Amino acid sequence: MPEPGQEIGLAGTLDETHDPMRSTWVSSAVSHPDFPIQNLPLGIFSTADKSAGPGVAIGDRILDLAGVAHLLPAPFTDALGHSTLNALLSRSPADRRFLRRSLSHLLSSAEKRCEVEPFLHDAASCDPHLPFAPGDYTDFYAGIHHARSVGRQLRPDNPLLPNYKWMPIAYHGRASSVRVSGQQVRRPSGQHRPGGASSPLFAPSDRLDFELELGLWIAQGNDLGVPIPIDRAGDQIAGLSLLNDWSARDLQVWEYQPLGPFLAKSFHTSVSPWVVTAEALAPFRMAQPARGPQDPPPLPHLHHERDQSRGAFRIQLEAFLSSALMRDLGHPPLCITRVCASNLYWTAAQMVAHHSSNGCNLRPGDLLGTGTISGPDRSSCGSLIELTRGGADPITLPTGEERRFLHDGDEVTLAGCAIADGYVSIGLGICTGRIVP
Amino acid sequence: MPEPGQEIGLAGTLDETHDPMRSTWVSSAVSHPDFPIQNLPLGIFSTADKSAGPGVAIGDRILDLAGVAHLLPAPFTDALGHSTLNALLSRSPADRRFLRRSLSHLLSSAEKRCEVEPFLHDAASCDPHLPFAPGDYTDFYAGIHHARSVGRQLRPDNPLLPNYKWMPIAYHGRASSVRVSGQQVRRPSGQHRPGGASSPLFAPSDRLDFELELGLWIAQGNDLGVPIPIDRAGDQIAGLSLLNDWSARDLQVWEYQPLGPFLAKSFHTSVSPWVVTAEALAPFRMAQPARGPQDPPPLPHLHHERDQSRGAFRIQLEAFLSSALMRDLGHPPLCITRVCASNLYWTAAQMVAHHSSNGCNLRPGDLLGTGTISGPDRSSCGSLIELTRGGADPITLPTGEERRFLHDGDEVTLAGCAIADGYVSIGLGICTGRIVP
Repeated sequence: MPEPGQEIGLAGTLDETHDPMRSTWVSSAVSHPDFPIQNLPLGIFSTADKSAGPGVAIGDRILDLAGVAHLLPAPFTDALGHSTLNALLSRSPADRRFLRRSLSHLLSSAEKRCEVEPFLHDAASCDPHLPFAPGDYTDFYAGIHHARSVGRQLRPDNPLLPNYKWMPIAYHGRASSVRVSGQQVRRPSGQHRPGGASSPLFAPSDRLDFELELGLWIAQGNDLGVPIPIDRAGDQIAGLSLLNDWSARDLQVWEYQPLGPFLAKSFHTSVSPWVVTAEALAPFRMAQPARGPQDPPPLPHLHHERDQSRGAFRIQLEAFLSSALMRDLGHPPLCITRVCASNLYWTAAQMVAHHSSNGCNLRPGDLLGTGTISGPDRSSCGSLIELTRGGADPITLPTGEERRFLHDGDEVTLAGCAIADGYVSIGLGICTGRIVP
Repeated sequence: MPEPGQEIGLAGTLDETHDPMRSTWVSSAVSHPDFPIQNLPLGIFSTADKSAGPGVAIGDRILDLAGVAHLLPAPFTDALGHSTLNALLSRSPADRRFLRRSLSHLLSSAEKRCEVEPFLHDAASCDPHLPFAPGDYTDFYAGIHHARSVGRQLRPDNPLLPNYKWMPIAYHGRASSVRVSGQQVRRPSGQHRPGGASSPLFAPSDRLDFELELGLWIAQGNDLGVPIPIDRAGDQIAGLSLLNDWSARDLQVWEYQPLGPFLAKSFHTSVSPWVVTAEALAPFRMAQPARGPQDPPPLPHLHHERDQSRGAFRIQLEAFLSSALMRDLGHPPLCITRVCASNLYWTAAQMVAHHSSNGCNLRPGDLLGTGTISGPDRSSCGSLIELTRGGADPITLPTGEERRFLHDGDEVTLAGCAIADGYVSIGLGICTGRIVP
């Protein structure tokens, strides 16, 4: 591992919080696959006795930050009474690193245990909430394998449009229907035109899909008219969650020309409750895209050497599917895809720089979806439309059931884990949702 | 005029507030082109001595609603301390009518004058604010003449896509950059590809345009998963403002495939400060589109007899342009378009019903743009790309200057007025913005 204090990531310096030897007195956190002491993700939770407020996940416990406010740096005290992380994570990167070091100290130092332990809750008895109140939600399209394979279904001769490698393509999403993981997803109705009929009908979608994405939460943002330069864009990422951009493909293909996706997406977007901070992810950065440098080279406003070499997140992502019958028969969820986030073409910093390059203002807590992350192979597709080749080639479940798209009762669960040699792996938790009629 | 109490519009009954004989003790409101006693639009304003709060425009004065809170119905008192109208106009239609009648009474009754007059401010010395804090902004594309003429420039053989007459096409816009009228509009930079060059450049837009639209403000909204039926969708419109959806055409044509407009629009959207309520507009409803019934007939979830016969707003809209040189030489702004809002193809209620038909939740204060409103003729085009046929056929200003698209220093002003036989006309005020480099 690099020396403490060495600058290794876009989110600043490595410090003692990343030390793989660091341990904690919270026993369930030792060797925890998602939430060891090296992670310390932030979120909003409530209990039967406590209204929603900020917490940090550690093992199978959640530390109530308001309870230990007197032990935390003064600048954060005000933000701990809020029911979102907007105020907490809109601090400067230096402040955010300071908070992380303080939390790491509280949870690793035996002498703090008596003061801190009363404010630990069993995660299983807590309710997660949306971590931020996103003012705007933007969904990018930075997964090049996804763009190419979906493009091929719509435009066989021209799968990747000429603009794709010049800018991170995106559309504005719907902020009001972003929900925390675990909530039911109601199958949307809408207009579609089955089999190329001459007129559309209004009916429940029968091509309901998931999309495996990362969600990037904006830290401080910018004023209207003041673009964020690429060399400071990385600092604008407060942290990451998993994101499922549920999609109704039949609605989408009928509505999306000429202005892009609208009702095919706006019925529900799920995000995982824990924000794994950019600071926690500092050891897990790498070059992107996975198969060599961006070609053509990005224009100057999207180009930064450090971002080119370390702009990606070394995060392994998975998607699992279970049907009602699978659950009834005791089958575990089926892993239907495994893919590394470095298969994205554009980096988080490039998304931020591009988004603000026209002067558009980002606000603390705004949410950026990366777009569906797929790899080059069928085992690494981040959506059913790719996995089943548009429904032509169904997946077979352990029960013998077939799936082209999602049925009522199906549950999709996303998971992710940052992995690097010499460091303790940290997880993103899960993002799950079950389809209801 | 219909009898008081007669139901004539989607916003409920006509009452004494619409009476053309009704007068007011605010002398400047008598025969005021925009804000007579029959209008009573709501907005947010501040003065040098008073922080931002709700007001009503009457003639050239603004009534501070917090000042007369004790004279207004109790249910509204709490909402008067806010710096947006979100709480005030998210009340039920019956409550909103009650508020209107109370305000009309205060401003017409001579015996209330002593109590009310101290809370009138000169509008000229007040600062307007954004009336709502929109959670989400959605821009429709309901102006069929605009869709056809812009479509013809992009797709000569196929100007109007097959979905257009089946559903109100829309895209999610950017809520963070919605600004009140009067603020400078910074020319955006972005990627474009002049003259079909093989690679794009990043430079200031040189095809900057305006779009003449109405903005519809959502009243109560709906819960996620619970669509708003068409017969109740009209009640969801709290009121209207003018909206200018500034557009960078060169950025748009390069970025918009396949996910729609993004940075070409998100740098700035202007709205006029006064919300002309649905109640005030009750006498000014008519059938839409202007040239006969919707054909094909809308699917059942978008069809309602009353909406078909009275879903439109009888509002005359105008756009004016002035250059820096025109202002220096004392020329008045040049009227470059005149068009009736009934040239829209889809009604406000259809937009609301469609938007929520997949279960997407609307929230109080959400903003819907109608899309550019153009008529069939060149004198009624709501954008420069139509007026100048994509820049091929410039406008000549009174100074001899030519305009294909907007230059720095140009100012665009939108205005609108609801007109119907037997009623006093009411105006929307203006929506203005000047381009800065």
